[in-house]
Amino acid sequence: MTDTLAVTDGRVLTPEFDVIEADVLIDADAGEILEIGPGLAGDADGTLDATDSLVMPGLVNAHGHATMTLLRGYADDKTLEDWLQEDIWPAEAALTPEDVGVGTRLAAVELIRSGTTAFADMYFHVGEVVEAVREAGVRARVGHGVVTVGKDAEAARDDFAESLAVAEEYDGAADGRVRTAVMPHAPHTVGTEFFEEFVPKAREAGIPLHFHLNETETYLDEIDAEAGVRPTEYADDLGLLAEDTWVAHGVHLDAAEIETLAERGTAVAHCPASNMKLASGMAPVQELLDAGVTVALGTDGAASNNDLDLFDEIRDAAMIGKLAADDAAAVDAETAVRVATEGGARALGFDSGRIEAGANADLAVVDLDAAHLTPEHDLVSHLAYAARGSDVRHTVCDGEVLMRDGEVLAFDEADVRERAQEHAEALVERAEE
Amino acid sequence: MTDTLAVTDGRVLTPEFDVIEADVLIDADAGEILEIGPGLAGDADGTLDATDSLVMPGLVNAHGHATMTLLRGYADDKTLEDWLQEDIWPAEAALTPEDVGVGTRLAAVELIRSGTTAFADMYFHVGEVVEAVREAGVRARVGHGVVTVGKDAEAARDDFAESLAVAEEYDGAADGRVRTAVMPHAPHTVGTEFFEEFVPKAREAGIPLHFHLNETETYLDEIDAEAGVRPTEYADDLGLLAEDTWVAHGVHLDAAEIETLAERGTAVAHCPASNMKLASGMAPVQELLDAGVTVALGTDGAASNNDLDLFDEIRDAAMIGKLAADDAAAVDAETAVRVATEGGARALGFDSGRIEAGANADLAVVDLDAAHLTPEHDLVSHLAYAARGSDVRHTVCDGEVLMRDGEVLAFDEADVRERAQEHAEALVERAEE
Ligand SMILES: [Zn+2]
Ligand SMILES: [Zn+2]
Repeated sequence: MTDTLAVTDGRVLTPEFDVIEADVLIDADAGEILEIGPGLAGDADGTLDATDSLVMPGLVNAHGHATMTLLRGYADDKTLEDWLQEDIWPAEAALTPEDVGVGTRLAAVELIRSGTTAFADMYFHVGEVVEAVREAGVRARVGHGVVTVGKDAEAARDDFAESLAVAEEYDGAADGRVRTAVMPHAPHTVGTEFFEEFVPKAREAGIPLHFHLNETETYLDEIDAEAGVRPTEYADDLGLLAEDTWVAHGVHLDAAEIETLAERGTAVAHCPASNMKLASGMAPVQELLDAGVTVALGTDGAASNNDLDLFDEIRDAAMIGKLAADDAAAVDAETAVRVATEGGARALGFDSGRIEAGANADLAVVDLDAAHLTPEHDLVSHLAYAARGSDVRHTVCDGEVLMRDGEVLAFDEADVRERAQEHAEALVERAEE
Repeated sequence: MTDTLAVTDGRVLTPEFDVIEADVLIDADAGEILEIGPGLAGDADGTLDATDSLVMPGLVNAHGHATMTLLRGYADDKTLEDWLQEDIWPAEAALTPEDVGVGTRLAAVELIRSGTTAFADMYFHVGEVVEAVREAGVRARVGHGVVTVGKDAEAARDDFAESLAVAEEYDGAADGRVRTAVMPHAPHTVGTEFFEEFVPKAREAGIPLHFHLNETETYLDEIDAEAGVRPTEYADDLGLLAEDTWVAHGVHLDAAEIETLAERGTAVAHCPASNMKLASGMAPVQELLDAGVTVALGTDGAASNNDLDLFDEIRDAAMIGKLAADDAAAVDAETAVRVATEGGARALGFDSGRIEAGANADLAVVDLDAAHLTPEHDLVSHLAYAARGSDVRHTVCDGEVLMRDGEVLAFDEADVRERAQEHAEALVERAEE
């Protein structure tokens, strides 16, 4: 067993977003960065070559549904409402626990390949998700997604109770790489009475909350018709917003809602690709940042993206952030990379997202030896606008090497892909019966 | 020398967008596809393995400025006007012919790597561009960009005359892979009298026209103040619009302008990434298509993108096309792939963009053996939403293999990159003096 690992001969993206020539020394047992500086290779038990490469913080995917990789390309080019009702919910109703394990493993391969070291997962059969995360070696904040609409009172109550029980059961699993949250799907898909009963219990147990907020205008209207207020005010009245809460989307937010999120310290996981693909709209990312809200990035499920390459989201966030602000200076390259790293880590409550002594040893090593990353006027610009997940050579999480020179070590990737194909075919067959 | 080439054991994307198991037999001398069907390998002088891969038409990049790869990441996050005036034009003023040769070679490597077999280029020192295209083996429609504003009448006249002379000189170069166009930069950067003098001459010589149209609202206002009409009407009055004309951008087009483009048979090269990055706006792509306008895709220069991977533009076109139409069904996956292939070929006047007997043998072979392309519910969806340039294994243009298993054959890629770095550094130094 290796006790220390040195990432050698590369350049390092510092928390100040300078690029320096340095080695990174890691305590592999503790999973922490020990030191950044020149000539650290000699002290290390193992090394990872970063010649011609940039060592950056591992990316954080702050909102998603990993199993939905099984539905990648199954139904495209539809509105969120039609897509959910006609395709996704029927398929999800046919999901088995084994599907969840297989789909999450496929997602993990994709995440590791593209330099993502931590992700959030809202789904079902969370025990299977936890097992996949344990095996993959990544870090995750997982939870059981609660939906109460369309259920009788007992089934609805059981569903929310399950989310709380699951969060209590798995928190700290996989040597602490798994953390949990209570995950009511959204203000409009969970009844008020269940929020009133369970949110205080989650708070008491110190468990964070995660839910979808203001993804489409239809959803705003539903809450408005029922509660007579904007969803963020509704959520705030129910005690849903706090420093350890993070919400997904936040596409349609008015100024008062942005202010409320800022005051409560609630982070927003921006999902630009999903918002574009479902024509949901453009989130006011620069306004959120200006108000002091922590912004993170999420892919959402692969079925509305259609991949889990967070470099796409970095680029999309910068691109669509400019359009939304009608300002080419909005969401600049550094900002886009920061939200994908330190923003995500803050949203999920991980001490990751920066290359610094004491932080989690979660990092991605990007190969700079490529035509599309030439010339080198500005490496941060390249990370935001030109790099893609396939440029990642090595991925390290919690001090362990998960991918070395393009080879994923945790899994037999061919086997994962083959099982994913089989499970996806069987799932669709069951769903369409 | 190989006379025939068989692309074997893959699946093929047909002009009807079916995916069939077939070999593709190519006449390498004529640069044409001979036959698509099973068991064609035995007849061929050479083979290209497409196992676990999809053979698709080579992508067509219908608007760009290849040399601007040298300015990739040099200036980001600025409006088009500031970016041009403060950064790009000063740098371009310092460009040498050798810079153009080097920058175009870097662009060619990037294009070949990401499966693009034909591109449009509006730039200066066109002889250098032609030489790079000849060496690279790709297909191109090239021209000299004319700007008359800020020049005295003689210099302005000389610039337009140069565009015409260059188009006449190089048309048919590189065994016919190089075609040309007269390329006035835009209606607002070229004086009316020069259009009046030279456009009839270009028409008489049978040379197509290419220019920027309605990229930003500022530019609309400039034409409106001067001519009192929308730019498309202004261009039409000057005889600029025709079946062999294609324009870049078309972001801000009203219904009458779309109708005019449709009536004239003028194609639009949509540049979604550039339009987002410069906050120019969202082109009405679905409206253009519904009106019967040929839509193609362009990266524009690498400095406003920041790469030449047309798979990004396919995805962006679908994504932003939905937002612009406020309809998730707009610009669906098949449409986005079609505009990048047959749309581009039609805009540039090449008999490419489809895998069919008799068409140019311009194709890309995409490796499907990847986590992010698993499972296979729909390969066209994967091409639009999940694939990226790095998934391309082989690139063939005019019957010649330009990249085999990820190795670019035409160039010493390391040398191209090294020279690009040197030239980019020297260029920036001169520009900032
Ligand atoms: Zn979601
Ligand atoms: Zn342009």
